[in-house]
Amino acid sequence: MISANQRTFITSLHLKKYRQKYRNFLVEGEKMVGELLKSISGESSSGFSMVALYGTKRWANENSGLLDPFYAFFNEVEDDDLKKVGTLTTPHGVLAVVALSEKTTQPTLKPGWLLYLDGLQDPGNLGTILRIADWFGVVGVFCSPDTTDAFGPKAIQAGMGACFRVNIQEDCSLEEVMNKYPQLPVLGAVMEGANVFSSELPSSGILVIGNEGKGIRANQMQRLTHRIAIPPGPGGGAESLNAAVATGILVATLTNKK
Amino acid sequence: MISANQRTFITSLHLKKYRQKYRNFLVEGEKMVGELLKSISGESSSGFSMVALYGTKRWANENSGLLDPFYAFFNEVEDDDLKKVGTLTTPHGVLAVVALSEKTTQPTLKPGWLLYLDGLQDPGNLGTILRIADWFGVVGVFCSPDTTDAFGPKAIQAGMGACFRVNIQEDCSLEEVMNKYPQLPVLGAVMEGANVFSSELPSSGILVIGNEGKGIRANQMQRLTHRIAIPPGPGGGAESLNAAVATGILVATLTNKK
Repeated sequence: MISANQRTFITSLHLKKYRQKYRNFLVEGEKMVGELLKSISGESSSGFSMVALYGTKRWANENSGLLDPFYAFFNEVEDDDLKKVGTLTTPHGVLAVVALSEKTTQPTLKPGWLLYLDGLQDPGNLGTILRIADWFGVVGVFCSPDTTDAFGPKAIQAGMGACFRVNIQEDCSLEEVMNKYPQLPVLGAVMEGANVFSSELPSSGILVIGNEGKGIRANQMQRLTHRIAIPPGPGGGAESLNAAVATGILVATLTNKK
Repeated sequence: MISANQRTFITSLHLKKYRQKYRNFLVEGEKMVGELLKSISGESSSGFSMVALYGTKRWANENSGLLDPFYAFFNEVEDDDLKKVGTLTTPHGVLAVVALSEKTTQPTLKPGWLLYLDGLQDPGNLGTILRIADWFGVVGVFCSPDTTDAFGPKAIQAGMGACFRVNIQEDCSLEEVMNKYPQLPVLGAVMEGANVFSSELPSSGILVIGNEGKGIRANQMQRLTHRIAIPPGPGGGAESLNAAVATGILVATLTNKK
């Protein structure tokens, strides 16, 4: 059973406004909640803490090992209850309400590559970019205030749990990131940039990723120290690449230079 | 006005079954129809032909140049009519019914890179992969019989018009492709494959892309002449990359070697 109050609270978290107000967000489905529980068990260093866990009897039985440290948060419910409060059309056995700790806003970062997302709109792209960051060991992902929410339901699904492992800081300006890491060069992909495959490029830096349709904003453009590009192949006819694919190619190439 | 018969026919094309039966498919929205009209005007060498075009007065006025050669196919309708027959929740002024000519099944391909999609399930990934193929000038994309339809509405939207420019052949086996191009090596990404960034690799070939969850099928695996991998970065924690992102990184790296 989920009470009417709980239901109101959980469904409010479908919206960014309430996620920001309460600093809580939802994680849905066996796969994503599994990633979450793994990332916040052990040392609670991940910056997240459990608020409530709603799962079916079947889910609890099949995941008793994972559930054990979180039993105090657990409420047994039916799939029908999950359907009423979740965003998935077919509920997958479990839903968690998670709090973002204040700590996540001040990660201490090792040297390496950082991403700055400049007005990225599509939550699927954002989740996919976090998955890229997670794969290649990008040390931090910073989001402009108008970038879609990394903790929205679609971004979390697309990210396959990457948001629990990657250092994410939302609502920050490129200037702040540059002030925090003044030694780092700032790279961005622009049409007439240098060929990323053949150019001499730095071994660490801030890579700026622009909006899907408009690219990097004009006022950020002037902050770039290196303008790079993914040149089209001979006979290529596309106008552009998908933003997450372009990010994948750039991060893969930059982290595997030489 | 769209008649009841036309409406039944157009909505039937939401389903792969009827797209295959009639060899017709839908293209929706200003952007995608614009790409379509550009690709099939001029020489009708693209393998597609117009069946019917339904657009609002506003769309027709704003696109009179593009519309001109297709005026015989044009029916003026209201946005509300489009909503009843299309798949977009917000209709974007125009919808086209297009026929696939038989010609598209036998393209003559230049030497270069081919993709074989082995059980790819997500239409968004398929469209994004066609966009990658289009950008890097991949000479042909072949799809296994159980790969999602390249001419389904979601794949077309994600592909941003790439399906009108890339040579696509659906419903074929890897064996057929290998028989047709016996001189080409066959590459596939597998966990324990050779580092794609640092290995000596061929300059053309067939790149096999596996299913999102399961990867390349066991019986295809034995046909690979080169097993490659995108190694995770130091500190990377993701289980895998998105299928389209991995394809983008592999195609970009293979087409930009040396």
